[in-house]
Amino acid sequence: MMAIEIAEQPAVWQRVLAEGQPQIAAVAARLVERAPRFVLFAARGSSDHAALYGKYLIEITHNLPAGLVSPSTVTIYGSRPDLRDVLMIAISQSGSSPDLVRTIEVARAQGATTLSITNDVDSPLAQVAELHLELLAGQERSVAATKSYTAQLLVLYLLLERLKDRNGLAATDLPSLGRSLLAREGELEQAAARYESTQRMVITSRGYSYATAMEAALKLMETSYLGAQAFSGADLLHGPLAMIDAQLPLIVILPAGPAGRALREPLSVLARQGASIFCIGNQPRLTGFSLPNVADELEPILQALPVQLLALHLAILRGENPDAPRGLTKVTRTL
Amino acid sequence: MMAIEIAEQPAVWQRVLAEGQPQIAAVAARLVERAPRFVLFAARGSSDHAALYGKYLIEITHNLPAGLVSPSTVTIYGSRPDLRDVLMIAISQSGSSPDLVRTIEVARAQGATTLSITNDVDSPLAQVAELHLELLAGQERSVAATKSYTAQLLVLYLLLERLKDRNGLAATDLPSLGRSLLAREGELEQAAARYESTQRMVITSRGYSYATAMEAALKLMETSYLGAQAFSGADLLHGPLAMIDAQLPLIVILPAGPAGRALREPLSVLARQGASIFCIGNQPRLTGFSLPNVADELEPILQALPVQLLALHLAILRGENPDAPRGLTKVTRTL
Repeated sequence: MMAIEIAEQPAVWQRVLAEGQPQIAAVAARLVERAPRFVLFAARGSSDHAALYGKYLIEITHNLPAGLVSPSTVTIYGSRPDLRDVLMIAISQSGSSPDLVRTIEVARAQGATTLSITNDVDSPLAQVAELHLELLAGQERSVAATKSYTAQLLVLYLLLERLKDRNGLAATDLPSLGRSLLAREGELEQAAARYESTQRMVITSRGYSYATAMEAALKLMETSYLGAQAFSGADLLHGPLAMIDAQLPLIVILPAGPAGRALREPLSVLARQGASIFCIGNQPRLTGFSLPNVADELEPILQALPVQLLALHLAILRGENPDAPRGLTKVTRTL
Repeated sequence: MMAIEIAEQPAVWQRVLAEGQPQIAAVAARLVERAPRFVLFAARGSSDHAALYGKYLIEITHNLPAGLVSPSTVTIYGSRPDLRDVLMIAISQSGSSPDLVRTIEVARAQGATTLSITNDVDSPLAQVAELHLELLAGQERSVAATKSYTAQLLVLYLLLERLKDRNGLAATDLPSLGRSLLAREGELEQAAARYESTQRMVITSRGYSYATAMEAALKLMETSYLGAQAFSGADLLHGPLAMIDAQLPLIVILPAGPAGRALREPLSVLARQGASIFCIGNQPRLTGFSLPNVADELEPILQALPVQLLALHLAILRGENPDAPRGLTKVTRTL
């Protein structure tokens, strides 16, 4: 199922681009009226990495401060924050986790404009938020989220473009670029063989693509039970660098733009420490998987494909069932 | 040096309680005038975990939305966010990392009230922020931060108490409680032996104490080169749970209050999955290290001591030098 849903992604993106625009335009119009001054995201798991991407988009392209919510402050400690002028966006495939539902319920009562982005229009989260955007990803059955994750990124991108009166035309090529990447699945099956008996891994990136590093770590933890850890290139130098040696494989998600340039310094430090690097991005000189040039903001959508395929093939190689990770169910309900 | 600085902490806390109050009162008075509506924290490494603690404090005890800054949005992408009504707090032992200095510089120009909390009044960060609080921790020489971290927590706690016209009297007992905990160092030396040949570990907690889990993971990565990963009890169930089995040691930082009750469900799930749990907190029934009862907000300050001692003894046991982690220097400068 994970393999099928990975392969569906170009078609999902096509659907979001073709059919998603009216709902996005309607929500954008409401948000323009409210003119929020601060944006908060509430999410868990893969959706939390989409939220991280959204946080960067809001800060960089809209010059608004943004943050990620700690749901426990509301659900466990009973905090009732003053949320006037705040836009709170909850992101969830299922829209079912009680902590997110409660967080949005309280946020709405405390004056926030609330928007949920889910794959299920009838979910509790979609019902409780004032505004809703549907992911249009089709039913996702694999426990490890794939198509719902990239649909979340694309919907966020298109919403934020629309808020600047832009159509997100740069995203038009994504479906065909995605199909080309999927055709190179063999390269990732081969790369997975490098990690057949690996127990630990570090993934690093910076900027928009930091979300991809986080998502890569989660996919590897969920499907291959690897101790996969993601750090921004800067955070890595503030401590975790110490554990890097030639035995600890490192994956670098390397964007092309300014964030890619900012990764040069951490990469040279890592190379000096003997790190064994596999690079996903725009650097043909390094061992790795090359990606086409797209706008900085769109890179994480394409990066997700090789990351998902690597996790899938590694799980299969290690004899695990990526569709049924140990101890997990498709819908996780936390308080 | 790490051992000496761990042992100094009760005296540092005493100094903050005795000599730190005037500067805290002065800064609090300025903040009351400004009446910020949103709070952002900028920090790296251990200081980022103090920032996480501060975020929970702001949200829970002050009912204000708060977030953690991604410095790259400003330093790499050139974002110039609208920060009117925002309080931005930068936390750093050295006050020297250029990304934090630049973030505060831009924040001040963009209308934020800026406060830096550093151990060095002459540092660039202390100079560039409008307001400053000194940690009073004394020079820290060990690369792995210990006394500066708990001083950061205590200064944040006292500042936020003062903002509610309270004296933070509940913290008065911390130095004597800390001395009692340090006297039990032998228990942690013994506990460290369990992990002598461990390569991976998971640490979990919830609420205020989530910061302790994050800090524990960093200390173990820095000093023992373990693949130590921290998750909130809720995030753990949204994916990483899959990698837990009887071979992967788990440390639970267990608070006494509502966050401790919220951890019961994840703990029973982890037990079903065969996890081998060592508990630091208030549950004498489980194997672990017991902590005295203090206010929920103060628990992370005491929890830091057993966490630091465990990392110290594990590093020594594994033949590593905790004062000079591989590849790190005391002051890390990232862009």
